[in-house]
Amino acid sequence: MKVDFANRVSKPDFQGEFLDIILKTAANPSLISFAGGLPNPSSFPVEEVHAAVNKVFETKGYSALQYNAAAGYRPLREKIAARYKKTMGLDYTADEIIITTGSQQALDMFTACLVNDGDEMIVENPSYLAALQVFHHYNPVIKAVDLLQDGMDVNQLEEVLKNNNPKFMYIIPNFQNPTGLTYSEETRVKIAELLKDSNCMILEDNPYGELRFSGKAGHSMAYFLPERTCLTGTFSKIVAPGMRVGWVATKNKELLEKFEVYKSAMDLHTSVFDQMVIDQFLADNDLDEQIEVAKKLYSAKAQKMMDCMDKYLPEGVEFTRPEGGMFLWATMPEGIKGVDVQNLAIKKGVVVLAGDPFYEYDREVRTMRINYSNASDDKIEEGVRILADAIKELLEK
Amino acid sequence: MKVDFANRVSKPDFQGEFLDIILKTAANPSLISFAGGLPNPSSFPVEEVHAAVNKVFETKGYSALQYNAAAGYRPLREKIAARYKKTMGLDYTADEIIITTGSQQALDMFTACLVNDGDEMIVENPSYLAALQVFHHYNPVIKAVDLLQDGMDVNQLEEVLKNNNPKFMYIIPNFQNPTGLTYSEETRVKIAELLKDSNCMILEDNPYGELRFSGKAGHSMAYFLPERTCLTGTFSKIVAPGMRVGWVATKNKELLEKFEVYKSAMDLHTSVFDQMVIDQFLADNDLDEQIEVAKKLYSAKAQKMMDCMDKYLPEGVEFTRPEGGMFLWATMPEGIKGVDVQNLAIKKGVVVLAGDPFYEYDREVRTMRINYSNASDDKIEEGVRILADAIKELLEK
Repeated sequence: MKVDFANRVSKPDFQGEFLDIILKTAANPSLISFAGGLPNPSSFPVEEVHAAVNKVFETKGYSALQYNAAAGYRPLREKIAARYKKTMGLDYTADEIIITTGSQQALDMFTACLVNDGDEMIVENPSYLAALQVFHHYNPVIKAVDLLQDGMDVNQLEEVLKNNNPKFMYIIPNFQNPTGLTYSEETRVKIAELLKDSNCMILEDNPYGELRFSGKAGHSMAYFLPERTCLTGTFSKIVAPGMRVGWVATKNKELLEKFEVYKSAMDLHTSVFDQMVIDQFLADNDLDEQIEVAKKLYSAKAQKMMDCMDKYLPEGVEFTRPEGGMFLWATMPEGIKGVDVQNLAIKKGVVVLAGDPFYEYDREVRTMRINYSNASDDKIEEGVRILADAIKELLEK
Repeated sequence: MKVDFANRVSKPDFQGEFLDIILKTAANPSLISFAGGLPNPSSFPVEEVHAAVNKVFETKGYSALQYNAAAGYRPLREKIAARYKKTMGLDYTADEIIITTGSQQALDMFTACLVNDGDEMIVENPSYLAALQVFHHYNPVIKAVDLLQDGMDVNQLEEVLKNNNPKFMYIIPNFQNPTGLTYSEETRVKIAELLKDSNCMILEDNPYGELRFSGKAGHSMAYFLPERTCLTGTFSKIVAPGMRVGWVATKNKELLEKFEVYKSAMDLHTSVFDQMVIDQFLADNDLDEQIEVAKKLYSAKAQKMMDCMDKYLPEGVEFTRPEGGMFLWATMPEGIKGVDVQNLAIKKGVVVLAGDPFYEYDREVRTMRINYSNASDDKIEEGVRILADAIKELLEK
């Protein structure tokens, strides 16, 4: 029988086509991949997490396996609140934090609670591809505002706010996915000013914020507009992604009430076993030390990637130089498309992701995303050399 | 600022009001609760799960903490497929099973992929309250078909199918939540006949199916109409609920493709750590033995509950006598409302859940749900005695 699907899943899934490339090539160990966004497993605190599990069984027993509260395990929420205070100067209570199954689920929950068919919303251009996928399920009118070297183009944003009534804007101000770019403090202040008198909420995604290896952190939008900002976070990049523990934090009480009820309908709650394990890990270890390990590793890998790109890539290729996170963003010379580089490089044994799926509207772009967190130094060197060959071959055509 | 929420979360949440009662009273240990649906923690295989965790760390290492596939951990999906073959005679491959964060998430995913605003769908009357909550987020026109002693009223169903074009029907044929009722084989055959020539899909929820302590199991709708049925399942009631590992199984390839993409957008994937732990638990233990423990416990508790209800409740109170699962369903004498019993009983120290939130349309009903899986035998005796006092007091008014 032919299934009569809902409209939300009946449109062609442009982002999904590219995700397929990541997945299929990830399964082939003979390829060198800069395509995914995998943390480096050598940064995972495997022994410490194992010790935390043992302690959870000792001290929590049955309750680690029983149903628990939709909003999440309170001691973990308290620790997240304390960390916001320590690292970002933000005042949250445990009640203002709701645990989600990775921060990906927080994006879905937020959008479900805010967006009706045809509502306007703002994304960065380019933006995180799996966020675009979530947004499309709610059929909004998406306004894409260009990302410049110091963050969102505030002049474009002003125009969009003048002519539209967006429900919310989705931004990743630190080491953005896909570009690796970071908002300057000036841009953040200007965005807060522009939004202050609008109805536009802010969904600020901050998966990489703790992974800064150079420069100085700017303020979260939650610092300027606490009632209007939802900040999402995750343990995926600072502890381990496989457990899928993320969260959303906001001072907005109305939002918190809706989230708690909606989260319960989504999956009752996130694995309380995993929540208790991470809580125990945080109680028994110095998270700063753990993050330091990941930061050192990624800083070195970013440097290695940039050095190789400087060394091998032909003239005319430009790329961002991130202050943290896991990605950089390369722009090909005029006339060379990201998808052509992607397709030729795969044939030669290297996977990079063309920029296309990160744009809401632009296609056949000259950009591509390069992940540096997962490959070994040798593979980075070899991969960039091969990538350079592919680009040169296209330039000579 | 006032948040302009989406319509899907702006309607009054009738079910949620009652869930609040469960949650608030659950936090008060001086109350005797028959209100929730908690498995008895003494049935949790805590030591065996701990042993499985140790083995996962030994054998899987880093990969238990890394990102994994959206559809789920393949060895676990293979084991679920093998169990369907063994216990229900159903032929599924691992590819036809997608892991979800509890079966609750499978209900959400299925509805999201099928239902547009205003589409018709069918539920049992009464139905599982957290399923009704999920369905409401997609704004369907809900047709509620009465549940009789031997399952859905097939004459009513025939009428509904004649006059409507429902996208799907949601049923719990074994030890239904809330009623504890089970469909006869005759009813199942008749439903399959009625649906065969319609476009109506079937979402068959089967959280308690393995917890049968008397009688003989009927066939799943997947046995009669494999392409049209989605079967959801969960480890919550046979291993432990806190890890939130459930699944959906179907032979329908179109559905599977949509589910895999949609699941990825929902939360990337369910905790692969928890999936690997349950997979290891299944590899190293006899699940049948584990289930036998839970079945014996629940059978004894159901008997204790029924004995006490026979002994203490005033004449005119009727209740279902379940062949498995965790609930029975009581009907008060004419003139006595479930909510009145609920409210008076709470004052006296016992929590039961009025039938109202389980009905899509009916209010001020005479029914209430009674959970027998979680309380101790002494608390069951004491609780039913108090409940009886409350009902008698209302009868005398």
